[in-house]
Amino acid sequence: MAAREPEIITSKEKMRKWSRAMRAKGKTIGLVPTMGYLHKGHLSLINEARQHADLIVVSIYVNPGQFSTSEDLSTYPSDFYGDLQKLMSVSGGVDVVFNPYDLYDYGSGRDREGAEKRDSVKEVSCLEERGGGHETWIRVEKLEKGLCGKSRPLFFRGVATVVSKLFNIVDPDVAIFGKKDYQQWRIIRRMVRDLDFAVQVIGSEIVREDDGLAMSSRNVYLSPEERQKALSINRSLSRAKHAAEEGQINCKKLQDSVILAIQEAGGKVDYAEIVDQETLEAVEEIKAPVVICVAACFGKARLIDNIEIPAYA
Amino acid sequence: MAAREPEIITSKEKMRKWSRAMRAKGKTIGLVPTMGYLHKGHLSLINEARQHADLIVVSIYVNPGQFSTSEDLSTYPSDFYGDLQKLMSVSGGVDVVFNPYDLYDYGSGRDREGAEKRDSVKEVSCLEERGGGHETWIRVEKLEKGLCGKSRPLFFRGVATVVSKLFNIVDPDVAIFGKKDYQQWRIIRRMVRDLDFAVQVIGSEIVREDDGLAMSSRNVYLSPEERQKALSINRSLSRAKHAAEEGQINCKKLQDSVILAIQEAGGKVDYAEIVDQETLEAVEEIKAPVVICVAACFGKARLIDNIEIPAYA
Repeated sequence: MAAREPEIITSKEKMRKWSRAMRAKGKTIGLVPTMGYLHKGHLSLINEARQHADLIVVSIYVNPGQFSTSEDLSTYPSDFYGDLQKLMSVSGGVDVVFNPYDLYDYGSGRDREGAEKRDSVKEVSCLEERGGGHETWIRVEKLEKGLCGKSRPLFFRGVATVVSKLFNIVDPDVAIFGKKDYQQWRIIRRMVRDLDFAVQVIGSEIVREDDGLAMSSRNVYLSPEERQKALSINRSLSRAKHAAEEGQINCKKLQDSVILAIQEAGGKVDYAEIVDQETLEAVEEIKAPVVICVAACFGKARLIDNIEIPAYA
Repeated sequence: MAAREPEIITSKEKMRKWSRAMRAKGKTIGLVPTMGYLHKGHLSLINEARQHADLIVVSIYVNPGQFSTSEDLSTYPSDFYGDLQKLMSVSGGVDVVFNPYDLYDYGSGRDREGAEKRDSVKEVSCLEERGGGHETWIRVEKLEKGLCGKSRPLFFRGVATVVSKLFNIVDPDVAIFGKKDYQQWRIIRRMVRDLDFAVQVIGSEIVREDDGLAMSSRNVYLSPEERQKALSINRSLSRAKHAAEEGQINCKKLQDSVILAIQEAGGKVDYAEIVDQETLEAVEEIKAPVVICVAACFGKARLIDNIEIPAYA
């Protein structure tokens, strides 16, 4: 199949106009939100979207609202033209790449206030640090707190907010999120339910390299040696799932085995927790479907991964 | 003109379907969100909506998410059939009354969790107290803090959230809010800008009784005597505006005159503040357009009112 060039749209107004025109023709729209630096995991989301919608919009936008001031916004990898090549390689192609320059630019004028006025807020994201007057944030109050939320208290606030902006601009029928970012996926589903967005949220399975490492834009930070050591994450998760299949339902024991394996490989474990698939609350024994979620650092790279475990008992 | 009966829709799904069908016909939709117990103020919002849209949806829903557990949710006045009569009396009528039973009912199942799990949250609304699992809230972090936000810390969280739900369900082109609820109006405008809702928000001028009292569903709580005393609010606001026209730009002096007049009439002043019209931040001297916002209790009734003052200097 010949490569098909997507239309590149950079303004909110043009994006909205495109969606309205397509809807008026009776077409359904699938949105795949990304921060670019695409890999096979993203391309699998596009293939998933193709199953549910007539037209595919891929957004490429590194969202300052989800980075804290101590995080890696400025060094987040990007390769827009490489991304376009990859998108053209997808079977069926994509229809639009929505690549806004700044989703938080509301024009100049009195609405633009400096960061210095935010003195009552203790923690701010890269967005607030630079000022501009954006002050509306969506909190999914319980699901945002655990797992990655413990070390990144503003992260899911930023994710939920930018996704709702994208939903309002692109107006999709369906949006696809990768289950590698399990907590994010659950948060977006909950937000869509709680705010009555007319969007179906679909979770797409984790795509792994041949050796089992979950695909991530952050894998480029790994040296070849670290890369080998990082395999301890997916291997220990698979072993824990196997142990659960064999009857081990004690979560403490399963978690400890994952933590030990990653630490022995030289990784720094942020968390390894077994939580209810829907509430993301910690469980002691596997009686209902759970997921083991892990975040660990190897060198400069903070990697996350997870494995779902049905209730075998 | 003959009275026209509106279609009454109670389910989210039917409401959304109606909007999509009308949009497919090229019609524009105006939304007037209310909590019912309609008065002439509400009817003026409908007349305003008629100027901007082909079809009018009036929502009638007392939102538990904006009442704290100590507030008057259970006694909030309602009169659905009286409301329908009033809506039929409006010139041109309205097309739909959206009157959902419970906007936070997401069906039974694992998503429904009890209030007992909310132990990490100190302040809860009537919604959270009853459980149900809703946990997504929109915060307009700066604008929600002052004025009414000081004594009602969860109020605007609830308002912003239910309005975004209504926007997602009704999908209006235009939404009308009364400027009597000045802070609410500014918060909704900011939310719409910050979250890129494709909705134009229009503020409608305050409607007053013949004697000048701002129309409010809560006026029914006033005894005839209290009602007379409550006129001190609008009278003192008018006098302050007149003084500003005459050159008094010192906000402390203007505020004090309002507070004194209301107190002398027997009212309990919650606040009387002169703030910037857009940021709602307190100002010391009138150099840019401001608004004097007042909240005061007479008997059981907590009344709010305001008056805009351009920069005369």
